[in-house]
Amino acid sequence: MRTILMLAGLVAATPVLAVEGMWTPEQLPEIASELTRTGLKLDPAALSDLRGHPMGAVVSLGGCTASFVSPNGLVVTNHHCAYGALQLNSTPEHNMLRDGFIAKSLADEPSAGPGARLWVTEDISDVTAKVLSAIPKRANDRARNDALEAVQKKLIAECETDSRYRCQVFSHFGGVQYRLFKQFEIRDVRIAYAPPENIGKFGGDVDNWQWPRHTGDFTFYRAYVGPDGKPATYSTDNVPYQPKQWLKVAAQGVSEGDFVMVAGYPGRTQRYQLASQIDDAIQWSYPTQIKAFDDMIAIAEAAGKTNPDVAIKYASMIAGLNNGRKNMAGMLEGFERADASGIKHREEAGLVNWLEGQGRSGKAALENYRAYAALVESQRQTRERDNVLGWLTRSGLLGTANRLYRMSQERSKPDAKREFGYQERDWPRQEAGLKQLDRRMDPGVDRQMLGYWFDKYAALPVEQRIPALDAWAGLDGSEQGKAGLAARLDALYANTTLIQLDARLAAFNADQASLKASKDSFIQLAIVLDPALKEMEQRFKTLGGASARLQPGYMQALIDYRASQGKATYPDANSSLRITFGNVMGVSPRDGLEYLPFTTTRGLVEKNSDEPLFDVTQPQLDAIAQRRFGRWEVPALKDVPVNYLADLDVTGGNSGSPTLNAKGELVGLIFDGIWESVASNWVFNPELTRTIHVDSRYMLWLMDEVYPAPAILKELGVEPHH
Amino acid sequence: MRTILMLAGLVAATPVLAVEGMWTPEQLPEIASELTRTGLKLDPAALSDLRGHPMGAVVSLGGCTASFVSPNGLVVTNHHCAYGALQLNSTPEHNMLRDGFIAKSLADEPSAGPGARLWVTEDISDVTAKVLSAIPKRANDRARNDALEAVQKKLIAECETDSRYRCQVFSHFGGVQYRLFKQFEIRDVRIAYAPPENIGKFGGDVDNWQWPRHTGDFTFYRAYVGPDGKPATYSTDNVPYQPKQWLKVAAQGVSEGDFVMVAGYPGRTQRYQLASQIDDAIQWSYPTQIKAFDDMIAIAEAAGKTNPDVAIKYASMIAGLNNGRKNMAGMLEGFERADASGIKHREEAGLVNWLEGQGRSGKAALENYRAYAALVESQRQTRERDNVLGWLTRSGLLGTANRLYRMSQERSKPDAKREFGYQERDWPRQEAGLKQLDRRMDPGVDRQMLGYWFDKYAALPVEQRIPALDAWAGLDGSEQGKAGLAARLDALYANTTLIQLDARLAAFNADQASLKASKDSFIQLAIVLDPALKEMEQRFKTLGGASARLQPGYMQALIDYRASQGKATYPDANSSLRITFGNVMGVSPRDGLEYLPFTTTRGLVEKNSDEPLFDVTQPQLDAIAQRRFGRWEVPALKDVPVNYLADLDVTGGNSGSPTLNAKGELVGLIFDGIWESVASNWVFNPELTRTIHVDSRYMLWLMDEVYPAPAILKELGVEPHH
Repeated sequence: MRTILMLAGLVAATPVLAVEGMWTPEQLPEIASELTRTGLKLDPAALSDLRGHPMGAVVSLGGCTASFVSPNGLVVTNHHCAYGALQLNSTPEHNMLRDGFIAKSLADEPSAGPGARLWVTEDISDVTAKVLSAIPKRANDRARNDALEAVQKKLIAECETDSRYRCQVFSHFGGVQYRLFKQFEIRDVRIAYAPPENIGKFGGDVDNWQWPRHTGDFTFYRAYVGPDGKPATYSTDNVPYQPKQWLKVAAQGVSEGDFVMVAGYPGRTQRYQLASQIDDAIQWSYPTQIKAFDDMIAIAEAAGKTNPDVAIKYASMIAGLNNGRKNMAGMLEGFERADASGIKHREEAGLVNWLEGQGRSGKAALENYRAYAALVESQRQTRERDNVLGWLTRSGLLGTANRLYRMSQERSKPDAKREFGYQERDWPRQEAGLKQLDRRMDPGVDRQMLGYWFDKYAALPVEQRIPALDAWAGLDGSEQGKAGLAARLDALYANTTLIQLDARLAAFNADQASLKASKDSFIQLAIVLDPALKEMEQRFKTLGGASARLQPGYMQALIDYRASQGKATYPDANSSLRITFGNVMGVSPRDGLEYLPFTTTRGLVEKNSDEPLFDVTQPQLDAIAQRRFGRWEVPALKDVPVNYLADLDVTGGNSGSPTLNAKGELVGLIFDGIWESVASNWVFNPELTRTIHVDSRYMLWLMDEVYPAPAILKELGVEPHH
Repeated sequence: MRTILMLAGLVAATPVLAVEGMWTPEQLPEIASELTRTGLKLDPAALSDLRGHPMGAVVSLGGCTASFVSPNGLVVTNHHCAYGALQLNSTPEHNMLRDGFIAKSLADEPSAGPGARLWVTEDISDVTAKVLSAIPKRANDRARNDALEAVQKKLIAECETDSRYRCQVFSHFGGVQYRLFKQFEIRDVRIAYAPPENIGKFGGDVDNWQWPRHTGDFTFYRAYVGPDGKPATYSTDNVPYQPKQWLKVAAQGVSEGDFVMVAGYPGRTQRYQLASQIDDAIQWSYPTQIKAFDDMIAIAEAAGKTNPDVAIKYASMIAGLNNGRKNMAGMLEGFERADASGIKHREEAGLVNWLEGQGRSGKAALENYRAYAALVESQRQTRERDNVLGWLTRSGLLGTANRLYRMSQERSKPDAKREFGYQERDWPRQEAGLKQLDRRMDPGVDRQMLGYWFDKYAALPVEQRIPALDAWAGLDGSEQGKAGLAARLDALYANTTLIQLDARLAAFNADQASLKASKDSFIQLAIVLDPALKEMEQRFKTLGGASARLQPGYMQALIDYRASQGKATYPDANSSLRITFGNVMGVSPRDGLEYLPFTTTRGLVEKNSDEPLFDVTQPQLDAIAQRRFGRWEVPALKDVPVNYLADLDVTGGNSGSPTLNAKGELVGLIFDGIWESVASNWVFNPELTRTIHVDSRYMLWLMDEVYPAPAILKELGVEPHH
């Protein structure tokens, strides 16, 4: 009986299935009627206006999303997006992660770190024609790749002549469209308010991707600019940025069935990959990466157990690896449950069949598809080697040395000819990374991780190895060779100065000749590795050119095929701005079980234990026991809502995105999806896909009753109780 | 919105909270209006008629409940109640556990084992006055105990002069009331139908106590009697028993909110224990037992891994231990969640306060309460020793030897003077146990378990040990003594013939002198232990007398106190017949989560994996994939219901009890409770307590479409599809 009543209620009020689609702002007119039907009260056209309300308030943190919530530059995002910044400001004595932080005044707000940036997208322009016309006729794959790189660098450089802006070119549909984003770059980001980790990361890795969830995953930043209103790096002279748009907090929150939407910068989806690519993910890449992640976590955790300083240094890395391995495990589980491989194979067979049915006109597309599938297939041959070399050469001190040596080479070129990542625009980020290394790296742990990957390298077949590296490592095929490796690696750490920041900064500014003359063991190894890494890079560039030649044709065929079935196609997530919409709703994740749409503080008391990150803070326990819920209590729940579920379409990168109601007001932040939905990154499952949001009323309750922040509340337009 | 609709539906149709109470049949008139209000369509008075419908169909298996479902002696109970019988009939080649069983005809039905019994309660009489008047005035505790034992033996012997009956005296409220049960004893029980273990025990120990659940926990027995209609042990001459009452299967099943009731023989609850007793359970007895169970499981499982024969022998014991440890762990968790100790302490303080408020008239009850509390407290002193000696002397080959030696002594007494358990009426059960030992015991595993408990014994403080046993074991306090123990135990197994059935049976029939002359190592050890075991027994008898002196007064005070608050009091479960009632309903076990009331075959497909007991059988997968649900599909679920939840009040011993609808028709079998409710054995939690039932429609679907048993269906009055 309950079931029937529930279904009746749902059918009347809300759609039953999650709404697939990460739409670009320019696509919104296409889906305007669907937006209105689902419950949007704004004019759908308003959502295409990047400088208008509410889109003008949504900003990128690079890997996360955030939004302005006051005219004085106050920004809200997820606690887990600010985790690195909180970690940088934490010591065992003054532990901002553990204790949270409430700035007493603006002057009390600490820097989120030299690398912290906040980007306000002010313009998106279609540069497809400019990009594609730059490719010379009959260019080979390598030339095609170089031409594409060059034209994108040129477009970016032109756009960035105004030094207030950072610009990026995004390729949609694997090269069918190109879009240039022009983003006002804020270079001074500070921390205004963070709850204790036991709130902001409540439940930790155990609860990650889980429901019921009780995580207060929010932190307030503030954006600062120079007194002239232009972007400036941290300085006490800087002043709060005055955004053109900021979100109003909807104090009344949301109820089940309500329309919600999320605007943000989702990182990466694989909705249009080939069936062979999902098979590879299932059979090789995800299991391989999970193993690697687990082993790296084990090394860092073991070291952290005996040394709290090391534990703090690797907390962020461990959190990221744990998140990643859980995500991949969830995808593998979801792929199996949904028969994702089967779905992909059937879809692809459908495309082939449709193209074959086109007769002569489909022939070129069919040939292009076959060539593209063969190109993808060819990448399997070196995947083990590519994976090991990636881990070995890109992370830790060796990764730093490789980047420093490469920088010394790129520096001598004209800026437009420099590699992506080594151009002048990238230098501040490179430098910030060098500065942060002290807070994120322990030589002992780094040595263990490097040793792990050298062992994997040594186990590769000899024809996949790099002779120069074998020679350096003494890997001559003998057992002594292998046995000597450990001593060789120990010497590497004994004879480097890169552990010191000043040595790293000096190397960063040095020319190639000085580095060649350097006696630093890591720099010397980087010099040994350099030719092989460049050779790999050349190979990848040729592959990139081949992909640019074939992928757009494949994607266009797929778009046409889907259109023939009445399906609109949005581009795969690529870290560019997207909008997704749907409704607040629970889900039956398994037979006999239902996830209710809201959790409350009651669940905190239920989960409270001595386990790490399940230890509810005493001020919360007191407020709950005394039922000091004030105006944040929802009568139907007899409690303050903590988290809620909705049926939106998001992925990593959307973290911190504002959840908006039908009027574009802030009703929470998205911070996760349920375990059952992570496979939707590849194959969207509307029945099981649900997003997890922190309720704005929980944030306001914490700042009103538990860890009072009256100044922030006032700034949000909420009169504080205390 | 959904929440509001749901609550509205519930409030209108059904009570929101589970209904506490395991009522005796004679109490039903007291709660008649409540039964009718909850939905019973029968005249409540009918439920007090033990020989009428439906109560006359409900029978005891000893530790489980069952019910007649055809006029030809067909009986249904849980698969886990028949597990031992199925195990006895299983070999690695013909594995009835693994493959299930469908009797081709009556002649094909195998015996459930020589010890299998089925008891039909025909009369319950109030013998309180007879029992209490047998206690001599001014009897000391030991004399009180002996008088109570003697009068109960006398009442039983009188009742059992008719050899068709087995009789039992049950003490309610710790001795406030005594009831004599007269039960027709069926001694030939056979197996008619069992699903494969992957259905009957689907989910195994992982899913035990869990929801969502998908276990087809049912098996059909058939009761046989001699051609003259009298009880008879197994013989091919025997004929199916013709019960006076049998249940009709309700083919339409139940829906959410429907009235359901369960009649059966719940084993033991602790609803009226002292606060100090729950504290002991929390702090000592449950943690201690969980550790012991885990260690015994580990020993048996390790041995089973290398030897499938051993695995089969210990499967039943492991299942029981796993069930017990999970139950205890669940209780500990529930105690903490519900603050059960606090509730108990407050209740007890309330009782004391109430008695104190009575002035002079409450004084005696108050003194009695304090004396009873002190008696309970006194038992703590020897609890470690009592626990170790219990495990050491009562199980395996040593337990068998102890019982055999004791039997030789008891045999020489007049039957009425023999100890409980050694009277003539108990001999068949003793003998059956000796016969089954071959199928349940492996000397290697037994040796390991005995060694484990000897080590625990050796670790006891010397004043708690038994000098004679220390001498036998060479435990003289030296390290050599301890080191020699293993050799001593090895010799024990090398020099016994009790591993052979004929030797055990010979010893069972031998007199004390012959056993004293026996060279069997285990018999010799039993002779060494005998005086110490008797001494412990004497101490327990004195304690029993003291308890019989004090507990009734405490319970009567509690009954009066509860009556003063308008609360009716039912006796703690004690394996006697009870009735509980309520409604089909789900539950929110935790914030943000809801257990829906029904599971379906869809969940089987979701759970299907290679894990033991999660491997869904192929005939099921085929039937589900082809949607061969026939008339067993429920339109609202679009599937066949597998299990459902209700808010009844049951405990172990209720397993196999028929679940009856408002008209007394069979709608399923109860087989478990959810994890969140196990603490209700001590402190009933109406918000979280839910029972788990196998749906009659699942049973019928399996027998109709998957593992067809047309003859059984016809007998149940259901026309088979095939």
